[in-house]
Amino acid sequence: MSTTFETTPRADGYYMPGEFTMHAGTWMIWPERPDNWRLGAKPAQKAFVAVASAIAQFEPVSMAVSARQYQNARGMLPANVRVVEMSNNDSWMRDVGPSFVVNGKGQLRGVDWMFNAWGGLDGGLYFPWDLDDAVAQKVLEIENAGRYRAPMVLEGGSIHVDGEGTLLTTEECLLNPNRNPDLSRDEIETNLKEYTGASKILWLQNGVYNDETNGHVDNICCFLRPGLVALTWTDDHNDPQYPISQDAYERLSRYSDAAGRKLEIVKLHQPDPILITADESEGVDAVDGTLPREEGDRMAASYVNFYLCNGGAVIPAFDDLHDRLAVETLQKYLPDRKVVSVAAREILLGGGNIHCITQQQPQ
Amino acid sequence: MSTTFETTPRADGYYMPGEFTMHAGTWMIWPERPDNWRLGAKPAQKAFVAVASAIAQFEPVSMAVSARQYQNARGMLPANVRVVEMSNNDSWMRDVGPSFVVNGKGQLRGVDWMFNAWGGLDGGLYFPWDLDDAVAQKVLEIENAGRYRAPMVLEGGSIHVDGEGTLLTTEECLLNPNRNPDLSRDEIETNLKEYTGASKILWLQNGVYNDETNGHVDNICCFLRPGLVALTWTDDHNDPQYPISQDAYERLSRYSDAAGRKLEIVKLHQPDPILITADESEGVDAVDGTLPREEGDRMAASYVNFYLCNGGAVIPAFDDLHDRLAVETLQKYLPDRKVVSVAAREILLGGGNIHCITQQQPQ
Repeated sequence: MSTTFETTPRADGYYMPGEFTMHAGTWMIWPERPDNWRLGAKPAQKAFVAVASAIAQFEPVSMAVSARQYQNARGMLPANVRVVEMSNNDSWMRDVGPSFVVNGKGQLRGVDWMFNAWGGLDGGLYFPWDLDDAVAQKVLEIENAGRYRAPMVLEGGSIHVDGEGTLLTTEECLLNPNRNPDLSRDEIETNLKEYTGASKILWLQNGVYNDETNGHVDNICCFLRPGLVALTWTDDHNDPQYPISQDAYERLSRYSDAAGRKLEIVKLHQPDPILITADESEGVDAVDGTLPREEGDRMAASYVNFYLCNGGAVIPAFDDLHDRLAVETLQKYLPDRKVVSVAAREILLGGGNIHCITQQQPQ
Repeated sequence: MSTTFETTPRADGYYMPGEFTMHAGTWMIWPERPDNWRLGAKPAQKAFVAVASAIAQFEPVSMAVSARQYQNARGMLPANVRVVEMSNNDSWMRDVGPSFVVNGKGQLRGVDWMFNAWGGLDGGLYFPWDLDDAVAQKVLEIENAGRYRAPMVLEGGSIHVDGEGTLLTTEECLLNPNRNPDLSRDEIETNLKEYTGASKILWLQNGVYNDETNGHVDNICCFLRPGLVALTWTDDHNDPQYPISQDAYERLSRYSDAAGRKLEIVKLHQPDPILITADESEGVDAVDGTLPREEGDRMAASYVNFYLCNGGAVIPAFDDLHDRLAVETLQKYLPDRKVVSVAAREILLGGGNIHCITQQQPQ
């Protein structure tokens, strides 16, 4: 079934629930492109297996994989992960997958946003992106879920919702002219509300320093539950991340959410700066039109890029002194979840982290 | 989830139900290979759309399609057909798909038979067939159904079951040394019983004259319900099909089924001989290792190659004088179903018919 509705989720009584509510499962995409992932994506594939295995302790995981990599992925993944064939340009299910929406009757549909590889021909990260743009539709058909095709470029990682009317995003990304140059801020807000069911948009200014997504919110700030957000943080005044986190903190302190609540803010101190090594840079194919991975470049590492699943939270580890504090802090605020740490440097090297490679399907 | 059981369906209380029982839906595969389907498979694709549309009146249809053909298939198929990406070597879901089995509790699993393209390197129809052999597993994963990997080469079209213990097949196919040269007739019977739950095997000698599958039973004889079979027929004593249908009739008259019933036999008179035209032959790419489609070759046309779906029966039409009689006869014996006729010459040109391109998923 491939029903595409001409209406909007809001008009039909559907809304996007918070990630912290119960999931039917998690969708991911298998990494393979050698011009983004070093050494033919072999180290990244191991990291993705670790993430999928960690999530599969808590809920069903489906891995979309190209025909080329099907056998290898099926062989590397545990039996309790469902593997389905699906072509793709890269492995960022958060950004290319559907934003699932539900109504009060337990029915499921999905929003298929337009996708242009984080900026199209004006700063996008690779070309082409046609297969990525078809992923949401393919996932929705497998799940027999109806589809809304939103008239706007948006990646799932550039928004977070509390499912109670509040949507968090950044100006750096959503107002970037390489996404929707023909839409005003008001028109963008209207679309966000129509397609997620939110009634109030909370704008941060920027995402994490040097984030190649143009500042996706999911790397800097997210909801742990309505009224409670996590924010990436640094105490180092000389770090370029310092003013960004400061500004976000000030805005969040000022804002109230759609329900009128003031937000409680949990700071997750970032790891020390993580730079790409010569060895890591050298393992990536150089291809015109794909963002290169150059020695010495600082990566946008953040513990906020974790993923909430049923009874669990899967958080990146960077072999850094702050790893333990991040886990302990998160565990303190999520007493009913088991916080699981997965080594994520190989995912970070590809330009994102655990939240970027996952997509929840609500129950 | 990708559970492969080391047991057998019989051991676990599962059996293959008759095609005439209720379905959850129908699986098909989109045709595209230009060395089997003329004119880049464009005429065949229209015929598959007609078949999918006919079935979709009665129950959900899922069409597996390669990445290459995804957009074209999605565009050509109606919205109520689910399209999922799946690589393949050709489009015979009956033969490469799972044989679904159920238990008394409404649970679903599937048998993934070994596949060697109707004879492997000894008379098989093309090479390679690795993608076809993976189709059953991929379908089962999408449906979250556990899998049995049967230790035997078998195509779904080479067996028919009544779901009450009886299995119908042909010696020409199942005892052909190009399928399971190391298995005796007894061992093959044992496997059939273990993997379908049948207790009695009824053997016909041959399939339809010049059938390139080495005589699949689904082109010559099938169950309309327990105790009632349809048999392809000709009154022309000079037709090479005559002795084949005679022999089948005699055997079927002699046999009783697993429940001890004598079989009632409905004759469906075949169409007049249908030969490949010069024009049709010329539209097919010549490729070493793929069976050529040569001008003047007689095709194995049979009305028995119909498909039963929920409340319906979809039967091939050949623009032949016998088309109408076949529909009327079938309608008479299936008073509770709507018999729908679909022009099928373009499917026949590829080497099979409506039953060969479909696979039922029981409810």
